[in-house]
Amino acid sequence: MALSFVKRLCVQLEQTDRILPGGYLYMSDLLGLPSLMEQAGKIIATAFYGSEIDVVMTVETKGIPLAYATAAQLGLPVVLVRRDHQVTEGSAVSINYVSGSHKSIHTMSLSRRALKEKSRVLIVDDFMKAGGTVRGMVDLLGEFNAEVAGVGVLVESGAVETEERLLHDYVSLVKLSEVDSKERRISAHPGNYFSS
Amino acid sequence: MALSFVKRLCVQLEQTDRILPGGYLYMSDLLGLPSLMEQAGKIIATAFYGSEIDVVMTVETKGIPLAYATAAQLGLPVVLVRRDHQVTEGSAVSINYVSGSHKSIHTMSLSRRALKEKSRVLIVDDFMKAGGTVRGMVDLLGEFNAEVAGVGVLVESGAVETEERLLHDYVSLVKLSEVDSKERRISAHPGNYFSS
Repeated sequence: MALSFVKRLCVQLEQTDRILPGGYLYMSDLLGLPSLMEQAGKIIATAFYGSEIDVVMTVETKGIPLAYATAAQLGLPVVLVRRDHQVTEGSAVSINYVSGSHKSIHTMSLSRRALKEKSRVLIVDDFMKAGGTVRGMVDLLGEFNAEVAGVGVLVESGAVETEERLLHDYVSLVKLSEVDSKERRISAHPGNYFSS
Repeated sequence: MALSFVKRLCVQLEQTDRILPGGYLYMSDLLGLPSLMEQAGKIIATAFYGSEIDVVMTVETKGIPLAYATAAQLGLPVVLVRRDHQVTEGSAVSINYVSGSHKSIHTMSLSRRALKEKSRVLIVDDFMKAGGTVRGMVDLLGEFNAEVAGVGVLVESGAVETEERLLHDYVSLVKLSEVDSKERRISAHPGNYFSS
């Protein structure tokens, strides 16, 4: 069931018109399908059933529907990390983090009242390359004395050297092994969810 | 059913510790509950059953879970408007819009390939004050030769003069008639969904 769903997703991801400048992949149409997000969230949830988790966390924007779909399965609330500090969040804790693939510095921020101390947190995102964004969320959890209970991503990019990878313990549904914008070739395979 | 759900939501919104500087209301805890979003999305969907709609649209960030919950009920995809132009969206159309309550200018942008011409679009958001953000989405639809099929919001602020309101045709589940940060008083009532 899970594998056939992910294999169909891989076929969709391999459509060459998804290739964007810089080797990025257009996925917004797929992320915009509530039923697809629900199925993906169900699979990620199965990887963490029985784990002690208090909340699901994601950073805006594209991972939000997957985080809600996963949280709905596990019966948990969602905590949303912002890229900027918003007036509607009250006082917040902000950190800087380095994107692993670009080495550029970004900010993320979380409302003080969004997360209780010692919470056990499942991090969910739509895409992971070197893992800098997820690493940033892990660092942010430290500021709240909260703990990572797990990390689940829809798609991981395999185009990362092992020593560049900032995060090693995660579950992925799809692994992109190649996005070649010159040859217009994409290779997508089932992720480590299916090999562990 | 719908009314009792919204009345319970009003009681939660009236908790005085939600008041933030500037008269904003902290709602992220409620927006973070997948089951609450699902129920709210079901109610908004009932207001548009039978309407000719192709997609649900929202602008990042906080309206996203409600938009997905509504779209899931109606069996529709979600189109996500960004505040900035992102590399992962490909070529995009950007517009500037004026926030009605602050008179400040913002940008929103939508990927060219996200929306087909002549699409009929249901706009969903978590909060509406003067309606400038929703108005911006309506203007953006014009750039795509797409049409507004309806507007649904979770919470509308009643603290807007009628002549200031930029949008008059919408469905709201909750109406905030007062957020008094000095007296620490909030009044929330069922919105126009229940009076139309």
